[in-house]
Amino acid sequence: MQLLETTFWSAGGSRHRMAEQLGFSKSKANAIIAGLVDQGLLAEAGLQRSSGGRRAENLQISGALGVLVGIDIGATSLDIAVLGPDLLPLAQHSEAADVRQGPGIVLARVRVLMRELLARAGADAKRVMGIGIGVPGPVNFESGQLVNPPLMPAWDGFSIRDALREDYAAPVFVDNDVNLMALGELWRLKRTLSNFLVIKVGTGIGCGIVCHGEVYRGAAGSAGDVGHICVDQEGPRCHCGNLGCVEVMAAGPAITRMAVEAAEFGQSDLLAECLRTKGRLDALDVGHAGRAGDAAANGIIQRAGSLLGQMLASVVNFFNPSHVFIGGGITHIGPLFLAAVRQSVYQRSLALSTRHLEIQYTPLGTQAGLVGAGVLAMQETLKVRGVAP
Amino acid sequence: MQLLETTFWSAGGSRHRMAEQLGFSKSKANAIIAGLVDQGLLAEAGLQRSSGGRRAENLQISGALGVLVGIDIGATSLDIAVLGPDLLPLAQHSEAADVRQGPGIVLARVRVLMRELLARAGADAKRVMGIGIGVPGPVNFESGQLVNPPLMPAWDGFSIRDALREDYAAPVFVDNDVNLMALGELWRLKRTLSNFLVIKVGTGIGCGIVCHGEVYRGAAGSAGDVGHICVDQEGPRCHCGNLGCVEVMAAGPAITRMAVEAAEFGQSDLLAECLRTKGRLDALDVGHAGRAGDAAANGIIQRAGSLLGQMLASVVNFFNPSHVFIGGGITHIGPLFLAAVRQSVYQRSLALSTRHLEIQYTPLGTQAGLVGAGVLAMQETLKVRGVAP
Repeated sequence: MQLLETTFWSAGGSRHRMAEQLGFSKSKANAIIAGLVDQGLLAEAGLQRSSGGRRAENLQISGALGVLVGIDIGATSLDIAVLGPDLLPLAQHSEAADVRQGPGIVLARVRVLMRELLARAGADAKRVMGIGIGVPGPVNFESGQLVNPPLMPAWDGFSIRDALREDYAAPVFVDNDVNLMALGELWRLKRTLSNFLVIKVGTGIGCGIVCHGEVYRGAAGSAGDVGHICVDQEGPRCHCGNLGCVEVMAAGPAITRMAVEAAEFGQSDLLAECLRTKGRLDALDVGHAGRAGDAAANGIIQRAGSLLGQMLASVVNFFNPSHVFIGGGITHIGPLFLAAVRQSVYQRSLALSTRHLEIQYTPLGTQAGLVGAGVLAMQETLKVRGVAP
Repeated sequence: MQLLETTFWSAGGSRHRMAEQLGFSKSKANAIIAGLVDQGLLAEAGLQRSSGGRRAENLQISGALGVLVGIDIGATSLDIAVLGPDLLPLAQHSEAADVRQGPGIVLARVRVLMRELLARAGADAKRVMGIGIGVPGPVNFESGQLVNPPLMPAWDGFSIRDALREDYAAPVFVDNDVNLMALGELWRLKRTLSNFLVIKVGTGIGCGIVCHGEVYRGAAGSAGDVGHICVDQEGPRCHCGNLGCVEVMAAGPAITRMAVEAAEFGQSDLLAECLRTKGRLDALDVGHAGRAGDAAANGIIQRAGSLLGQMLASVVNFFNPSHVFIGGGITHIGPLFLAAVRQSVYQRSLALSTRHLEIQYTPLGTQAGLVGAGVLAMQETLKVRGVAP
């Protein structure tokens, strides 16, 4: 069991390294591995480059074990993938969606897509080992229920886990979307970083926390709720009731609002033109205008980045992470946003906390949430099944 | 080894619970315990109340193991204790001090006091097992060196560990003072809480973080540096260079400054009288005046508490701790301060994060740092010595 988990996290490591990590002797590790290969749970995956002595065989979780389903429900998007145990997608689909339509409509669509994708991947429903789902709101991880989700009020108290249990025998695990992005990056990094943050900037702003090498969810599962940190005591009122939350001033809708204003008040010909043609504006349009040299667009990007950086400065002083990865829709806006965030953090945080701090866009990009959903499904399924040894 | 550590953390648990916690069988645990008792490392400590069957024997770390020295160097105080392995003080001393005098003067005094206290405790220098030291600044935990400590610039890069090694054979461990307060509370709680914060408000403001049941120090050891989180972008300039840091607006010196102003501008007869008699004012005086009904004093307490709460609200949104313990000199100011902090946090943090949040003064009070220094000494010494099993 432990060996399967280690193999999964090291994504194709050698026998030797595996035994080392688990503190097993070489002979004990070999015996256990032989057993797992016989059971069809582990597969030998080609040979690693020689390092002088004889060649060590790489191990990976066997594809025969089954498939995983990763589902990333965003505020305005739906991403689903059928993944192998190595997390490579066997079939994948993305579409626009509106989470506010409630669980009935959204999950009916999820069910249809799951059937289609499993068919495309050539996998029977019985081969599904585990299902991992990310949602844009606070989740009680134990019960799988949503708790007062501000962006999806119709889902309050709803258990996605119970709803999907009817169709599949496989266990279902639900978590906050940005926790899953953090889990995805942790897997990509093969746990080489222990303390980092993933910030998602989309319709809202959230934060996934990795602490001591594990995703940290807090005492009540609401850790990382950074969208309502105040950045301007005289700022606009947020839907949470307070003034000047970073979410109401720097997330997607705020950027759109600033862009529409710039278009309507004649501050930007490019944005006005774009608004006329498309009927609406988003972060991508602002990014395009900015790269074309539009001063108003660049001002908006600067302002949003600077406000996000101001919030991040507090968080960096408190948490002293080694890396901050920024993901979500905002990444389409381009590099100027990142530069503004960095400038603001480096100015406001203490030298000791920023000396080695890296701030960058999520390396997994838009796949981070799906990969994380797959990692959740695999990791928790291995725990639940408790396959020997 | 593991059993000694478990015994230390459970502070007098039964054999049965010990075996359970370590996942040992009863017979294996009994054999190991017998060995440790024979070696004089564990002692049987009376009998626990019967729970129906035969009575289980409690275990504790044997006093024969030696003594620990805990040292809490504050910005303006010095506390030293010689402690038994159960962390009960055998001899203790506190005095005013000025850390800015630098390591030469302060550590010379530490050496004298250690000799005196060991003599009072009837313990030979050779019986010292480990020395734990807390300092009011950022520490590189691995090297034991201070890194750019703003309150103690003369100590930058100084290794306290190396300085004390000359006198004692025992290992010396150095950490930030508020990390040690967190470690002390973690030990008092026997690790029953996994995610909580300790905020120290004295000359500066710092935060100790317990995450997943362990003290969290961050990627560069500067986690918890919350004193420089901004609470007013147009506030006064802090020694760090930024405007409106919570430390420059709500810590001890800010409270004193507000109190002196109230006294000098005729806003408070009580504070003016106190300033005339003593020649200076501190948090204790402001607390006294407040409890006597002085409106200006209560206004100062409210303001400082509210600003601290504003910073804490950000931190609570991010970290979602179960408890926040507030310690340091500020605790002398009385309950109104705590009420103002609570009000401010509950107003600005999200409902999910505060529903079960407890905010209170540190249960260990002024002893938290010393107890934590003792825990550090014991825990790290057990790790370094690696006594069997």
